[in-house]
Parts: sequence; C-alpha cells; structure tokens
Amino acid sequence: MRFDIITVVPGLLDGPFAHSILQRAQKKGIAEIHVHNLRDYSVNKQKSVDDYPYGGGSGMVMGIDAIARCIEALKSERGYDEIIFMSPDGETLDQSIANQMSSQQNIMLLCGHYKGIDQRIRDIYITREISIGDYVLSGGELPAAVLVDAVVRLIPGVLNDETSALSDSFQGELLDAPVYTRPADWNGYKVPEILLSGHEAKIAEWRHEQALLRTQKRRPDLLED
Amino acid sequence: MRFDIITVVPGLLDGPFAHSILQRAQKKGIAEIHVHNLRDYSVNKQKSVDDYPYGGGSGMVMGIDAIARCIEALKSERGYDEIIFMSPDGETLDQSIANQMSSQQNIMLLCGHYKGIDQRIRDIYITREISIGDYVLSGGELPAAVLVDAVVRLIPGVLNDETSALSDSFQGELLDAPVYTRPADWNGYKVPEILLSGHEAKIAEWRHEQALLRTQKRRPDLLED
Repeated sequence: MRFDIITVVPGLLDGPFAHSILQRAQKKGIAEIHVHNLRDYSVNKQKSVDDYPYGGGSGMVMGIDAIARCIEALKSERGYDEIIFMSPDGETLDQSIANQMSSQQNIMLLCGHYKGIDQRIRDIYITREISIGDYVLSGGELPAAVLVDAVVRLIPGVLNDETSALSDSFQGELLDAPVYTRPADWNGYKVPEILLSGHEAKIAEWRHEQALLRTQKRRPDLLED
Repeated sequence: MRFDIITVVPGLLDGPFAHSILQRAQKKGIAEIHVHNLRDYSVNKQKSVDDYPYGGGSGMVMGIDAIARCIEALKSERGYDEIIFMSPDGETLDQSIANQMSSQQNIMLLCGHYKGIDQRIRDIYITREISIGDYVLSGGELPAAVLVDAVVRLIPGVLNDETSALSDSFQGELLDAPVYTRPADWNGYKVPEILLSGHEAKIAEWRHEQALLRTQKRRPDLLED
C-alpha cells in the first residue's frame, strides 16, 4: 500500500513516519509513505503557495496552481483509489473507514494549512474528505498521520501479533477490558484475583463483562447500533 | 501554559512540536512543551517498561513502576490541572473541551502504547481520559500532538490573526464557507462572482448561506443541538 502526502510542512511528518509501527511497516515493504513538499511545485519566485481570500476576511488560502501541478504529477505516475482532503468538514474517520481503506492500493492525502484551500481544488480533484474529529487543528498534517497510522496497522503482517489488532477497542464494538501486568501487588493496589487464577474460561467471561460495563458507562452510544 | 508528555517513543513527537504553530507558540514563550522518555524512569537493566498481561492474551501492557515514578517526579515540581491519559476509551475530544483546556496552566499527558497500560495507573493517577476519535492507533503520541495543537492555537497571541481562530469550523457551530483565491479564472473554473463584487454585506450573507448549506448537507447533526 502506498500513501502520497502533499503538505507545506513536510518536516512535521518526519517523526510520525520514522518510528514505531509506521517505520516497521515501511521496513517490511508493506507500506510506502511519500511526503511531498508543496512548495517544490510552486513556480513563482517566492515559492509561495497561498494568497489572500477573495471577498476579504482573515487568514490565507492555499491556491490552485501548485496543488494541481503536484496532484497531476502523481496521477501521471499511477492510479489512485482516493485523493483525500483532510478537512474538519469531511466525514468523520472511524474504524470501519480505516478497515475499508486498509485494502486499497494507492491513496493521496492533501493536507490543508492556513485558512483552507481554494474550493476549486476540492471540486475538481478531491474524491473524499475526511475529518479525524470535531475540533480545529493548525493543518491537515497530524490528521494525515493519524489516518495513515489507523490504516497501516490493519494491513496483515504489520503488527507482530495479528490477534492484537482484532481485540482492540472498536473492532468488536466494545471498549477494551482493563489490563494488568506485574507486580500483582503494587503498594497495596492489587490485580483482580480472577486474572491470577489461570482459569481461561472464567477470565474470558470476566473480560467480556468488564468490557461491557466500561462501554455501558463510558460510551453507551456504541451499544445502540 | 505547560504540557508534559510522557511517552516511550519521544522521537515520534519531534516533528509536530518543532514546526508551524506549535513552534511559534513556544518561541513566543506562550506554550512550553516537554517530552519525557518513559524509559528514563525505568530502573530495570533492560530499561523495559512493558510486561505480559495477567490472565494471558496478546500484546504487552505498560507497567506501573516507570509511569508512577515519572508522574510523581513531575508532580513534585508543580501542580497539574489534569493528568490525562490518551485512550480510545476516553471522552471524545471536541472544540468545547479544547476551548476549556486552553485556559489551564499545567497539563500532563500520558501516551499509551502496546496493548494498554496497567489499570491501576488509571485508577490512581489519571484525572481525565481523552480520545481523539473512534479509531485505534498504535499509540497515544499522535493523539497527544493533536490535543496540544487543538488547545495551543486557541491561546491568545498564538495565531497571528485572532479572528482567524474564531471563524473556524466548529467555533460558530457551522462548517466553514468555501474559500477562493487567485486566479479568478483557472482553466475555465471561476470564482463565484459575488466574491469579486466588493459588496461586503452581500458577501457576508453569501458566506453564511454557504456555511449553512454545507453544514446541512454534510453534518446535519451539528444543527440539532
């Protein structure tokens, strides 16, 4: 699977893709992540990619030219399943979108910055708009990193233990049960005895009960569907 | 405002905090962001911070010892408004939580990794659990960066133009109206004439209509409250 990410702040994405699971997925050859500096596609002297909004108002708007040139260059090299604009206006990312995207081949992600991007880019090129939640961020870079992380970890072979992803919160419509590790007694705070019992069936039952309780208490909306 | 972030993958956060608005906020002295490597607080030879889960099952669990030592060290230096665990089980971040947090002084963020953290840490130390959305990620680092970004940009003086944050999507309960910049005609794709008219009142009216239309079409749920 290949991601092409278009951004004016490529350095912001250095860390997220060079560590942990995303690094491992790239080393194993399971995922390719290419970050493109939008300024490299600007043909004006200042390498600027933004300009004042028509009709006035605060903030700068990312213009069409450089973005169109970058998208066209990438499209000439391969077909894309989606050209996604990361935007608070988009459909909200959830686990089912991540699951669905994890079987795609080539995805382009456009990160907005400043006040937004020229609407014509959205009309002409963008096939899908995705938001990671109902809050405003300074750009689409962190959302792009979040989306890539959510998707890549689902590709078979990325996680060391495949059952690990399947038992995560949201995959089974319940939040996770509490987990514990050594020591069994930490300054008087003890691990629930059932987990030390070695009785697999009872432990599984306890975990299901706890997951259900936690979901009922914290996220009853997840149980309604 | 000060953030202390506890993580096993500190390098993952290098990029997000060294660029753009978060870099500017730190340079201006408005925000301090300190990243703490949890392994520095491990006292065993291997500097390990995780162990097998009690009761069996896949994945590793972050243990109590190092986390408790790090939290206690930080608490001995200053008071914290919140000690937040980034977790898919937490309350979902939205703009009103970000607004509220932007007036706090000291916030500690604990990033989970692997299969989760020992429940006793959550019971003893954590004052609030926050999720950035209904999807699973490989760790709490990107969510912590998202939270810091959402909050810091709201602190007065961080954005160059304060009205810019106030007119964002979600601040006014409507999504943003479309924005356009030069050229007025790009390969036959034109900017709406009203925006070129110079008629401020009509432009404001058009923008409100467009914001309302976009919200009705994409996020009718935002209009229900």
